[in-house]
Amino acid sequence: MGSTARVIALAAIAVAIASSAFAQADPLPSWNDGPSKQAIESFVEKVTEEDGADYVAPDDRIAVFDNDGTLWVEHPAYTQFVFAMDRVKELAPEHPEWKEQQPFKAALEGDMKTLASYGKKGLVEIIMATHAGMTPAEFEAIVEKWIATAKHPRFKKPYTELAYQPMLELLDYLRDNGFKTFIVSGGGIEFMRPWTDRVYGVPPDQVVGSSIKTEFQDKDGKPELFRLPEMNFVDDGPGKPVGINQHIGQRPIAAFGNSDGDLQMLEWTTAGDGPRFGLIVHHTDAEREYAYDRDTQFGRLDKGLDLAPKEGWTVVDMKTDWKEIFPPEPKP
Amino acid sequence: MGSTARVIALAAIAVAIASSAFAQADPLPSWNDGPSKQAIESFVEKVTEEDGADYVAPDDRIAVFDNDGTLWVEHPAYTQFVFAMDRVKELAPEHPEWKEQQPFKAALEGDMKTLASYGKKGLVEIIMATHAGMTPAEFEAIVEKWIATAKHPRFKKPYTELAYQPMLELLDYLRDNGFKTFIVSGGGIEFMRPWTDRVYGVPPDQVVGSSIKTEFQDKDGKPELFRLPEMNFVDDGPGKPVGINQHIGQRPIAAFGNSDGDLQMLEWTTAGDGPRFGLIVHHTDAEREYAYDRDTQFGRLDKGLDLAPKEGWTVVDMKTDWKEIFPPEPKP
Repeated sequence: MGSTARVIALAAIAVAIASSAFAQADPLPSWNDGPSKQAIESFVEKVTEEDGADYVAPDDRIAVFDNDGTLWVEHPAYTQFVFAMDRVKELAPEHPEWKEQQPFKAALEGDMKTLASYGKKGLVEIIMATHAGMTPAEFEAIVEKWIATAKHPRFKKPYTELAYQPMLELLDYLRDNGFKTFIVSGGGIEFMRPWTDRVYGVPPDQVVGSSIKTEFQDKDGKPELFRLPEMNFVDDGPGKPVGINQHIGQRPIAAFGNSDGDLQMLEWTTAGDGPRFGLIVHHTDAEREYAYDRDTQFGRLDKGLDLAPKEGWTVVDMKTDWKEIFPPEPKP
Repeated sequence: MGSTARVIALAAIAVAIASSAFAQADPLPSWNDGPSKQAIESFVEKVTEEDGADYVAPDDRIAVFDNDGTLWVEHPAYTQFVFAMDRVKELAPEHPEWKEQQPFKAALEGDMKTLASYGKKGLVEIIMATHAGMTPAEFEAIVEKWIATAKHPRFKKPYTELAYQPMLELLDYLRDNGFKTFIVSGGGIEFMRPWTDRVYGVPPDQVVGSSIKTEFQDKDGKPELFRLPEMNFVDDGPGKPVGINQHIGQRPIAAFGNSDGDLQMLEWTTAGDGPRFGLIVHHTDAEREYAYDRDTQFGRLDKGLDLAPKEGWTVVDMKTDWKEIFPPEPKP
């Protein structure tokens, strides 16, 4: 054994000891003991047990997470929806016609109910008017600025502090066990990328989402990308498996969602051969967060609730399964 | 310091010693000493020197590589082109009409010249007829089988053994220095993904390429993706920066290509702020590989040759810069 090899062996041993020292602590302290926590842990143990029948090689340990309502708060409205409304207000001076033109009028008046009545088409119209016409870097700067200052109407905190603590622990736990974690969201890919690494530990290239078209332009010898007011891809419902295939190129072995928009992702993931895991976060805690499922405009969970027991998916009851909802306050 | 912390510190020290032991060996042994090797090493040293003015944080060390002609042989024809011709032959019994119908007739007769005369449109037609109508997993199995058995007409070896040894070392060298390496190819994303991890150490989710449309279907309760005979995205020329933005979400700091199809990727990468690196592999070695640039149907390098000195891109002269072209023969 050469000196390099010896040092590497030493490093490997030390890392192994460190890992097993970690393993002794509870990796999911914000999860109450119960069937959900048990299901997660037994899945992870099973696929990482090298001599076990259900062992999955690290390269195939792909886990996908929906974002809105699965990793962070999505009520009273999707965060990007609020962002888009704020963008309408900011751009309004350049668009006097918006005062009389729907769905912009509703956005300007903060009339979420009327706005929602225009459905997906209205939302797309607003996204096109507020998210395009700039470079990706310019859009990123706008998102960064907004996300640093905007606050949730009820919790009075930045949205990035309203990620779910148990899910943050789950992301870490999976990564500590050799999983590669991806976000697969119906939300805009470039609305998430500026902050997912900081908040979730998920780098930009591991974020899959909806997108608008981008074009390469060479203006006066300055090569640049430009965001066009045209949809490119809708990463929702049946779009999720398509987006996963396109971006990740592998069928995940574990999928985490909370609404019917995650149904096809859960189905496709858990229909694969070998050990599979599906989980739905059920919002049952009106006191600490929100309680909603079949009857809501944001994150409707209807078919998924019926399918879960048949498919063997774990349904997390936020009220009883989660000790904490949000990360602890940073010490002053 | 707790016992866990102590063990982690020990591991970190051991890893640091191991890394510095590595650093003493030449990380690019197949590169002759000269301006190309020097330019690569000085760039990497500069962006990794923590107190230096050009330091780049590991998260931003994104490097993108073209595939055909940059990482492996692309003459006398793109490998996927040969694959498509073989697929036409395999599927011919189901398509008697192909005997009289171009471009299939040319493909069946192995008449590459006539086939090439149908240009991109002819190639797309053949791709649609041979790459669609199945699930991604089925297509993957077809690629795996072909790539394990097909041999290059001149070198009589599997194509995956015709990756360039100096570029394999370069990929490793960059990764050892905290870079994340991506493939950004005009070739089909799902033609590459089955073998890029094994050959280049690049996992499926770090491969960007051209693609056909995929659709989610739920056949008899069996959720499945299905490959449609319709182009989704052409990851070539101005499509490369677009593909990078879509998949990676960050502007790379280093780009490696060999043809005019890589021009916009090189331009967009090197036009960014801070230290940037662009490199073009120039095929100058007819004896050990091939010599071609402005006048070829596969991997034409014309504008790039003129632009490189103006843009400060490194041009690799395969004949003088590379000690070896291909990996050494495995010992019997």
